Amino acid sequence: MQNRQIHLDNRPKGEASASNFKLVTAETPALADGQVLVRHHFLSLDPYMRGRMNESKSYAQPQPLGQVMQGGTVGEVVESRSPKFAAGDKVVGMGGWQEYSVVDADQVGMLRKVDTTHVPLSHYLGAVGMPGVTAWYGLVKIIDPKPGQTVMVSAASGAVGTAFGALAKARGCRVVGIAGGPDKCKYVVEEIGFDACIDYRGKDAYALSKEIAQAAPDGVDGLFENVGGVCLDAVMLRMNAFARIALCGMIAGYDGQPVPMTYPQLLLVNRVRLEGFIVSEHMEVWPQALQELGQLVGSGKFRPRESVAQGLESAPEAFLGLLKGRNFGKQLVKLV
Amino acid sequence: MQNRQIHLDNRPKGEASASNFKLVTAETPALADGQVLVRHHFLSLDPYMRGRMNESKSYAQPQPLGQVMQGGTVGEVVESRSPKFAAGDKVVGMGGWQEYSVVDADQVGMLRKVDTTHVPLSHYLGAVGMPGVTAWYGLVKIIDPKPGQTVMVSAASGAVGTAFGALAKARGCRVVGIAGGPDKCKYVVEEIGFDACIDYRGKDAYALSKEIAQAAPDGVDGLFENVGGVCLDAVMLRMNAFARIALCGMIAGYDGQPVPMTYPQLLLVNRVRLEGFIVSEHMEVWPQALQELGQLVGSGKFRPRESVAQGLESAPEAFLGLLKGRNFGKQLVKLV
Repeated sequence: MQNRQIHLDNRPKGEASASNFKLVTAETPALADGQVLVRHHFLSLDPYMRGRMNESKSYAQPQPLGQVMQGGTVGEVVESRSPKFAAGDKVVGMGGWQEYSVVDADQVGMLRKVDTTHVPLSHYLGAVGMPGVTAWYGLVKIIDPKPGQTVMVSAASGAVGTAFGALAKARGCRVVGIAGGPDKCKYVVEEIGFDACIDYRGKDAYALSKEIAQAAPDGVDGLFENVGGVCLDAVMLRMNAFARIALCGMIAGYDGQPVPMTYPQLLLVNRVRLEGFIVSEHMEVWPQALQELGQLVGSGKFRPRESVAQGLESAPEAFLGLLKGRNFGKQLVKLV
Repeated sequence: MQNRQIHLDNRPKGEASASNFKLVTAETPALADGQVLVRHHFLSLDPYMRGRMNESKSYAQPQPLGQVMQGGTVGEVVESRSPKFAAGDKVVGMGGWQEYSVVDADQVGMLRKVDTTHVPLSHYLGAVGMPGVTAWYGLVKIIDPKPGQTVMVSAASGAVGTAFGALAKARGCRVVGIAGGPDKCKYVVEEIGFDACIDYRGKDAYALSKEIAQAAPDGVDGLFENVGGVCLDAVMLRMNAFARIALCGMIAGYDGQPVPMTYPQLLLVNRVRLEGFIVSEHMEVWPQALQELGQLVGSGKFRPRESVAQGLESAPEAFLGLLKGRNFGKQLVKLV
């Protein structure tokens, strides 16, 4: 079967660009015993992919050159030589930026059947998938807030940020977001249920911290950090004693020079616990987290928003837009 | 009784100076029931005192203006109206920068009798006192290293740094210090038993990190940070996955502008856990920590070094020298 793919052709020097990617057409190989052929309905685009485009050490191996960009996918089994899957099964996996993938069904964690009765298939790449579990881990395992405490999240309108907000509200927290632009701020307050959201655009850490003082009058007990830079600096200026920071991403620095933390002494002054993590190293929490997230979404209490780009060829531009914050909610590419 | 005291006269603008302090002569008040009069033999000088000289929020209340500089003291009870203490008892307390203090013996934690059979009195302000317990808490409760792991400490030749090294060696760790100057480096290696020590003077983070790579060929699993700035940046460039940072001090920034953390993204890349702490909030560990430290010192396995200034009037200059790293080991002022 003809299978269009997007490869990483060369590594970015500084800012990533469309010329780092290359559209290639291949043929899907014939299935061996135990394999299934999956047709991808959606590709997931996630900030962590930017780190993997570099050759330098990051938490994951670099994305190899001349190969399909790796990433999460949801789709449908179209052919199976495994007793575990049948044609028509809806599945989530790591198929990468291509229209089809051939998967060894016996390898643990490669492919998981999902139920689309109450949860739309695409949400298994977002709120009921890796981004949702990421939010859950940072909130529950690192920040561990008490009801009534104030927690904040940057990139609040994204897949992780909205899941964080929904989970924290369900735990009785005051939730304050930081997002880029009034529409995103309005969205997380009116549709996700955040108590407040601050537009970071055009503001330095000091100006931002003054707005945080208004939105979080009792100070900040926990921060889920996706961005770094001024967002992190500003929240740190408003942290309470014994606050916790779940450090999940530093998208502000992904494209170029490292972005410093301006006031590290505040970690000491406020006896902060900060923990960097990646959710794929904590597979033990996924079942519990996915169950809670599935219930929030399935019951309609949490309605995640998606930015959907059309067609495989749109993936590079959609990804670059994600890095600039041009997406609004979970960024997907729709293939079918 | 005539009692000379040093008061905080005014707050520093930028760098602290001798003119912030004022020598005052007072009379010790008559004892009420339950009180004891202590003659101080040694005052402790500690970096945390610099933070308290500022009015701004720190982890402790600011040092009040026009009052005796607060701080740890060891001495001898010279008069007692409490059944708990008798004249001649050796005691450790928080008597401040003065020759005598009157203490309410019934207030928990104000005064503690100590045994000077095996441990010299002055060490109760250092290795077998607050700095020793500080090292113990960061090592045992935050870094929690396995035998064979590599741990580092900045300000290695100081009271906290040497205790940290002695405790970590006793746990089978590879211990690498950072200190200012070849004499201090030589001392911690030859006399405290560090495996290596790096002189930070005149080096940027990159040069320092190259030396760390030599001294810690398997990378760094734990850091006890007293200094911040380039020392912290350099170690962060050599951290292993799941490393821990016990953040105890940032002396590099105490005197002026905040010193940024240059590569905060490494906390994410290496999934680091960083925790700021102050040991007075963890009184529950003191008995266990003091017992271990007392045994290390009492048995002669750990011989802490002291810098001793003579006479109360020398306290301000000795304190300013400590902030510049001019001390060598625990900085004390001898009064008797």
